[in-house]
Amino acid sequence: MILPSLLSAVCLSYSTPFVIPAETVNTLTEQISITREELLQQLVPFAQSLARPLISNYRVGVALLGKSGAIYLGVNLEFPGMPLNQTIHAEQFGVACARQHGETSLIAMAGSAAPCGHCRQFLNEVDDEGTLQIYVANTEGRTLPSLLPAAFGPKNLGLQDKFMIPLSLPSHPASLEERARIAALSSHAPYTLAKSGVALETEDGKVYTGSYLENAAFNPSLSPLHTALIALVADGQSYTSIQRAVLCEQRGAKISHEAVSCELLKQIAPGASFAKTMAIPEGTR
Amino acid sequence: MILPSLLSAVCLSYSTPFVIPAETVNTLTEQISITREELLQQLVPFAQSLARPLISNYRVGVALLGKSGAIYLGVNLEFPGMPLNQTIHAEQFGVACARQHGETSLIAMAGSAAPCGHCRQFLNEVDDEGTLQIYVANTEGRTLPSLLPAAFGPKNLGLQDKFMIPLSLPSHPASLEERARIAALSSHAPYTLAKSGVALETEDGKVYTGSYLENAAFNPSLSPLHTALIALVADGQSYTSIQRAVLCEQRGAKISHEAVSCELLKQIAPGASFAKTMAIPEGTR
Repeated sequence: MILPSLLSAVCLSYSTPFVIPAETVNTLTEQISITREELLQQLVPFAQSLARPLISNYRVGVALLGKSGAIYLGVNLEFPGMPLNQTIHAEQFGVACARQHGETSLIAMAGSAAPCGHCRQFLNEVDDEGTLQIYVANTEGRTLPSLLPAAFGPKNLGLQDKFMIPLSLPSHPASLEERARIAALSSHAPYTLAKSGVALETEDGKVYTGSYLENAAFNPSLSPLHTALIALVADGQSYTSIQRAVLCEQRGAKISHEAVSCELLKQIAPGASFAKTMAIPEGTR
Repeated sequence: MILPSLLSAVCLSYSTPFVIPAETVNTLTEQISITREELLQQLVPFAQSLARPLISNYRVGVALLGKSGAIYLGVNLEFPGMPLNQTIHAEQFGVACARQHGETSLIAMAGSAAPCGHCRQFLNEVDDEGTLQIYVANTEGRTLPSLLPAAFGPKNLGLQDKFMIPLSLPSHPASLEERARIAALSSHAPYTLAKSGVALETEDGKVYTGSYLENAAFNPSLSPLHTALIALVADGQSYTSIQRAVLCEQRGAKISHEAVSCELLKQIAPGASFAKTMAIPEGTR
């Protein structure tokens, strides 16, 4: 068995320790003679070390293997001063991170504990074939249908929308408002049709964008600020590095992230500015 | 089989159609020669008719049998203008309603569909013995451990706090602020220790209170405004009847419901006033 500290060192040698490219995964598994699924499980303690559970101090970590062969880590993020339903779970983080890196399908996931019910519901939106193998604490892999039998999902509503779609990318250069609009277009919002996106600019001039990811059971949805924060954390940035935030919403939408996102930003990055645009016309599909 | 319309008429003959007293449950089951579990299932369509799904128009209804023999209905509540994670699910409504009426244990639940993962996680906090029988669409009853195997709950954190506790009651007369404080003391908040409560006064002078109900997986928690709204809806009131709202929080708490509750209230009852007190001293257990 490889030492977790060595694995950590390998991960930290990348600019973004949350994403391990397919070539590195292949090299590691060959050199250490372990399977990709075993590697996933050995990465969990490192993922846990990256968590930001500022309320509970309870660190959750997952490692997800994408169809491309790359591995994505996920951690839990908790936000003091906000209600607990603003929490981002490690499984949500890992899935959103994989989606942001162009992954269109997930093969396996290892975690420090079995996913909670909220995460099983979130995963049910993603794993449309029920083939994701879930590993916990060195046990045999389980599928989501065995962890969430008689699940309620997109299929119950007759929807065919795929969750893991390639993201739209800006033709550089683009303003922060334009980046938020482009992120909105990559939303998964088949239930409200209310596309929305967020773009965050940090003090070093980097931009992180997030698309709204909706769930058939509503509550496990991730707001566009949530997914933008996932991109920011995956790049090793602090919340207080955020200087500007733009939320783009759709005209005539039944829902809005504005007030809650503005408050969340105020709690984690008091110095950041917040602006909203309605650059997605009504009826955009 | 009894006609649903007759059952609806029986329910509507009570001042609060969401609560059917034990004596009535006994009378009904004897006169129609059905079991209490069959009655539960026949009440589901009526519960669905009471739902307020203002975003999806997807009506969810449940009927819950308490240890006392009384039955409680639950419906989904959706709030336009807010993020989807503000949604209250029918199972959450039914459980909170039963708790508000002094029920200390739940025996069975029937629903229009199997609970989603988010609700299974919520129920896992409530059903500490794993004995709740769950009926869906005339199938055999299932237990929560079969619907949410390898669940994460209070026991994993070594907590013994019981969810279904009898509520504290005010010694009349009490101000709205005092009612909010008393509701806060009945919180289930073992994870943040941040007790909080809400009291709502309607235009007819009635008061509805709600206690904060926390979940081991954080996100499926119900805010005190949510549980106060459940009490209000269970009494057949409209949101716009709310004239005053008071939120009571605990000094030094790591979390706060203030901004999100204030915004939710603004969306559903634009004419209502909102005030906050910090009447629970730091360290109150």
